[in-house]
Amino acid sequence: MSSMVVVGSVGLDTIKTPFGEAREALGGSATFACYSASFFSPVRMVAVVGDDFPQQHIALLKDKGVNTEGLQVAQGKTFRWSGAYEYDLNEAHTLATELNVFEHFRPELPADYRKSEYVFLANIDPELQLAVLDQMESPKYIACDTMNLWIKMKPEALKKVIKRVDFLFLNDAEARQFSGSPSLVKAGRVLQSWGPKCVLIKKGEHGALMFGNNTFFAAPAFPLEEVYDPTGAGDTFAGGFIGYLAQQGGEITETLLRKAVVYGSVMASFTVEKFSLERLKTLTTEQIEARVRVLKQLAHFDLD
Amino acid sequence: MSSMVVVGSVGLDTIKTPFGEAREALGGSATFACYSASFFSPVRMVAVVGDDFPQQHIALLKDKGVNTEGLQVAQGKTFRWSGAYEYDLNEAHTLATELNVFEHFRPELPADYRKSEYVFLANIDPELQLAVLDQMESPKYIACDTMNLWIKMKPEALKKVIKRVDFLFLNDAEARQFSGSPSLVKAGRVLQSWGPKCVLIKKGEHGALMFGNNTFFAAPAFPLEEVYDPTGAGDTFAGGFIGYLAQQGGEITETLLRKAVVYGSVMASFTVEKFSLERLKTLTTEQIEARVRVLKQLAHFDLD
Repeated sequence: MSSMVVVGSVGLDTIKTPFGEAREALGGSATFACYSASFFSPVRMVAVVGDDFPQQHIALLKDKGVNTEGLQVAQGKTFRWSGAYEYDLNEAHTLATELNVFEHFRPELPADYRKSEYVFLANIDPELQLAVLDQMESPKYIACDTMNLWIKMKPEALKKVIKRVDFLFLNDAEARQFSGSPSLVKAGRVLQSWGPKCVLIKKGEHGALMFGNNTFFAAPAFPLEEVYDPTGAGDTFAGGFIGYLAQQGGEITETLLRKAVVYGSVMASFTVEKFSLERLKTLTTEQIEARVRVLKQLAHFDLD
Repeated sequence: MSSMVVVGSVGLDTIKTPFGEAREALGGSATFACYSASFFSPVRMVAVVGDDFPQQHIALLKDKGVNTEGLQVAQGKTFRWSGAYEYDLNEAHTLATELNVFEHFRPELPADYRKSEYVFLANIDPELQLAVLDQMESPKYIACDTMNLWIKMKPEALKKVIKRVDFLFLNDAEARQFSGSPSLVKAGRVLQSWGPKCVLIKKGEHGALMFGNNTFFAAPAFPLEEVYDPTGAGDTFAGGFIGYLAQQGGEITETLLRKAVVYGSVMASFTVEKFSLERLKTLTTEQIEARVRVLKQLAHFDLD
C-alpha cells in the first residue's frame, strides 16, 4: 500500500437538480477525491475549512480512514458553492460562490505528507497546486484536475502545473476550451504535448478517453437510468483512479492504467446516484467489484 | 450470402462545413446505406430520382454491386438537400429541402426484391416505410432508421413501423425526443418496449449503445482527429450493420450483433473523412479489417 496525498477544496454545497435539493451538504473536490480514493488506499487530505464546519463531516472522513492532519481549520466561514442543474444534468450553473476561508488558503503540508508517493492536485487555483508540488520531496506519480475558471483566468499557471504532472484530468468541455480544438481526439494529443504522460478526458454519460504514450483507451460509462446529482463525479473518478494505482503500487503499465480508469468510472457512477457522499457512505467493495464486472461485460466484444 | 433490400432517399446534397463545401454531391439515406452494405453483401435499392440525375452516380452504385432495378427514374427533378455544420459538427442545420420527385414517391418493389431476407428501411416518411413492409413476403430481419422530422410530424405512423422491426436505429437527440427521456439508458428501454427487439442509439464521436433483450452493449467510436463531413454517417453505420449480418447469415447471437455494431461504427468512421461517398469509393476490405482491430484494441481492458 503506497502513500497518497490529495489537495483540493472542502466546502458546503447547496444544489438544485430536477429531482431535489440539498442545502449545505458536504462537498468540495478534495472531499469527493479523498473519500473515493480511501476505498482503495489510505489518503492524506490537504484543504481548509472555517470554524463553522460541522464536526460530523470531519468524523465521516476520519472514519473512512482519511488522514485529516493537513485539513486546516481557519477562523471564518467555510467555502460555499451553490449550483443548479437543468433537466439534462450536463452542466452545473453556478448560482453563488463564497470563497470565505478559501480566499487566503495557503497549503501547508505536514512533514510526513511531503514524503507521499502519489499526489492528486484536485481542482483548486493552479498557483496553490504549484505550492503543493514545491513541498513534495520525491513524488512518484502526480495527477491534477482543473476547471473552466482556471483555464480562462490562469492558463499560464495551469500550464506550469500540467508540465509537472503524470496524469491530467479534465472534462470534455474543458479539454476543448484549453486546447482550442473541437475534436476531443486532437484536444487530448495537444494537451499531452504540453507535458502530462497521460491525459484523461471525462465525458460523463459517454465514458472517458485516456491518451497515453502512443496509446488510446475508450472507457464506457456505467449505464445509469437516473443521474440524481452529477456534483463530484469527476473528483470521485480521479480519486478512484489514483487510489487504485496507489493500492496496486509498482510499475504503471497500460493494463493497470485501463483498470484504474474503469475503477474510477465505476466510483463516479455511484456518486451521482445520490446527493453529496450519500451513496458512497453505504458503498461496499463487493458493490464496486460487481459494477466493474458489469462494465467489462457490456463493453466486451470478440472478433472471431 | 443472404438477400437484402434497402429503401430510402437518393438525392443531391449541397453541404457547407467549416472545412469546405460540396455542391450537388451524391447523397441520401439509401445511397449511404446501400454503398456501405455492399462491402459485405449484395444489396437491392428502392428509391426514386429525377430525370436530371447524373448517370455516373447510378454507374457508381452498380459498379459496387448495388442492384438498382428498384431505383425509379421519375419525370422531374431529383430530391435536393442543402445543409451546414457549425465548427463542432454535431448537428446539421438544414438550409433547404426540395422534395421534387420524392413528393410523389410510392415504393414499388420488383418481384424478386419482395423475397429479400434482410430489409433496411432507411430514413424516409414512415408511411413509405410501412408501404415497403407490406410488400415483403417473409423477411427474416427488418431494421429501420428515422429522423427528428418524422418523430415530430408522424409519431403514430413511426410507432407502427417500429412495432414491426427487429432493429431500430436513431441518434441520441432523436432517442431523447421520441422517448421523452433525457437519460439515454431509459430512452433505449422505452423505445424497446414499443416493439423492436433491439434499439441502437448512435452517438457520433461517443460511439453507440445497443439495447437488446436484457443485454446492453456500449461500442466505442473510432477516434478521428478530424471529422470532415458527418453527412451520411448514420446511414453508413446502419448499412454496415445490416450488411454484416446479411453476410454472416444464420442465427443472430449477441456476439454477432456486437460485431455488427463494430463494423457499422467503423464504416461510419470512413464516411465522415470526406464529402459524400468520396472516402468509401477508395475503401478496401483490408482497411475496414484494420480499423476493426484497432477498435478492439482501444476498447479492450482486462480484469485479472
